[in-house]
Amino acid sequence: MSETASGRRIRGVLAPVLTPFHADLSPDASRLARYCRWLLGHGCAALVPFGTTSEANSLSVDEREGLLDAILESGVPADRLLPGTGACALTDAVRLTAHAVRRGCAGALMLPPFYFKAVSEDGFFRFFAEVIQRVGDARLRLYLYHFPPVAHVGFSAKLVERLLQAYPRTVVGMKDSSGDLAHTKSMLEAFAAVGFDVFVGSERFLLAGMRAGGAGCISATANVNAGAIDRLYQAWRTPEAEKLQAEVDGVRTAVEKLPLIPAAKAIVAHHAADPGWATVRPPFVDLTAAQRDALLADLAALKFAMPGLRS
Amino acid sequence: MSETASGRRIRGVLAPVLTPFHADLSPDASRLARYCRWLLGHGCAALVPFGTTSEANSLSVDEREGLLDAILESGVPADRLLPGTGACALTDAVRLTAHAVRRGCAGALMLPPFYFKAVSEDGFFRFFAEVIQRVGDARLRLYLYHFPPVAHVGFSAKLVERLLQAYPRTVVGMKDSSGDLAHTKSMLEAFAAVGFDVFVGSERFLLAGMRAGGAGCISATANVNAGAIDRLYQAWRTPEAEKLQAEVDGVRTAVEKLPLIPAAKAIVAHHAADPGWATVRPPFVDLTAAQRDALLADLAALKFAMPGLRS
Repeated sequence: MSETASGRRIRGVLAPVLTPFHADLSPDASRLARYCRWLLGHGCAALVPFGTTSEANSLSVDEREGLLDAILESGVPADRLLPGTGACALTDAVRLTAHAVRRGCAGALMLPPFYFKAVSEDGFFRFFAEVIQRVGDARLRLYLYHFPPVAHVGFSAKLVERLLQAYPRTVVGMKDSSGDLAHTKSMLEAFAAVGFDVFVGSERFLLAGMRAGGAGCISATANVNAGAIDRLYQAWRTPEAEKLQAEVDGVRTAVEKLPLIPAAKAIVAHHAADPGWATVRPPFVDLTAAQRDALLADLAALKFAMPGLRS
Repeated sequence: MSETASGRRIRGVLAPVLTPFHADLSPDASRLARYCRWLLGHGCAALVPFGTTSEANSLSVDEREGLLDAILESGVPADRLLPGTGACALTDAVRLTAHAVRRGCAGALMLPPFYFKAVSEDGFFRFFAEVIQRVGDARLRLYLYHFPPVAHVGFSAKLVERLLQAYPRTVVGMKDSSGDLAHTKSMLEAFAAVGFDVFVGSERFLLAGMRAGGAGCISATANVNAGAIDRLYQAWRTPEAEKLQAEVDGVRTAVEKLPLIPAAKAIVAHHAADPGWATVRPPFVDLTAAQRDALLADLAALKFAMPGLRS
């Protein structure tokens, strides 16, 4: 079950792509498409539009479909896209996932339905089984998005096992954003042998994750630092690895002092010389000028750069 | 600010109306419309379609709009409807709320955007301010849905105060599903004097809530026991009140032994002699036959009935 239709699996550094907005808070498809191309040219092996950092859950289903179409039409290759297609409503999850498959995307990353908290393993299994069967397409490659700190619900080992047994060609991996390396290792020990790819949810765990058999990382800060994170990914077996890990950790530490999404957008806005890029949808708020200036100063001290972002 | 356009406020017992599904899990508008009429004739002062118990967050925006239209077209009066219109996405919340206002609904009950957890008070304020301004209709009456046990985010006293100051004619009440009577009392002490109506989220707190100045209750179990809960509501100042409270508590205790939504649907299915009524969308699962039989036996022992539900 370890091969996709094309025989290749996505590995490496992926960004849950920031979603730029116009001043009226509508999504800006052309800024997004340009930025996707920049990320693919600067360290990202593939992209996750509509991850948590994309403010995906602040977008309607129509907005998500429209943006995916726009990216594809701008020339971003579908086989380097792994859009987030999770939703609380079965009908929304089916619609988004079917759309991603129809458009030829390499896979889909799915949050569990995250509103109800006291849900049984049977209930989550039933949800994913319904999605897979209703999408009904052998091309679907599903990555499970495990993110208990925000979603508050997640995937137990037993649930992953049931899904792998029922849908061995469809369920192919996980983004593990638990922030718990022991959890990542337990997933790899249990399921890597059958070709289940585990991406860590922060580059902080990239080296340890690769040493445990991981497939890479899908990280918020890959939006601004994918080049350096990819250098670590490429060199993880070398003597340089610890030093490269420390370098990416330094940038992560600077960004994490502030709310990640507004902070990452402020960094892009600065390095693209495009102040509108900083706009976030509520319930987020923009950084204050003082927060932004301190963040940019911290990064400048680390000689941080985003080469070629300014158009 | 205590008067709506029509000069009347909804008070009493409200059901967050269960959503019936066809066997293929699509919503069943005609079963829903019949059931709404039954509830209004059997204890409910008004109805909350698309509350938590309605599995609203398991429905798409299109499904929610279509069901509201169907209920209204079946003759359920708009001035007895207070639909849930909350959503994680600003655009969805605006669309659902604008639709409810345009259709003449008495109000709208809004969850905060519930995906992101580390959100500032400013962010929540900004979200609600954007919804109110984008709906842009003086008829809007907004009830805040405070439900930390499930949504994990809620309304601080400071946030309620800011919203009341900014939108005194629009923000008119709260459903307090904290399960914490001290919280309900604190909201009433702070805001009842300016006409802010607080509904408790379970009939367990109805008598205590009314004694503290509350407006009634919006409760999952009002779907099956609104008649008895309304008798308590009507008699809360009388010597009978404690006994009536104990009676409704007995039914609530029986139902709460099981997951509330599948349990309430199983009860309706039995008393309507309509087995399909029990269907739930994933991530919920139907009760087992053993669970259902035990529940119905518990209720029979309490002489529980739903008169006139069988069509």
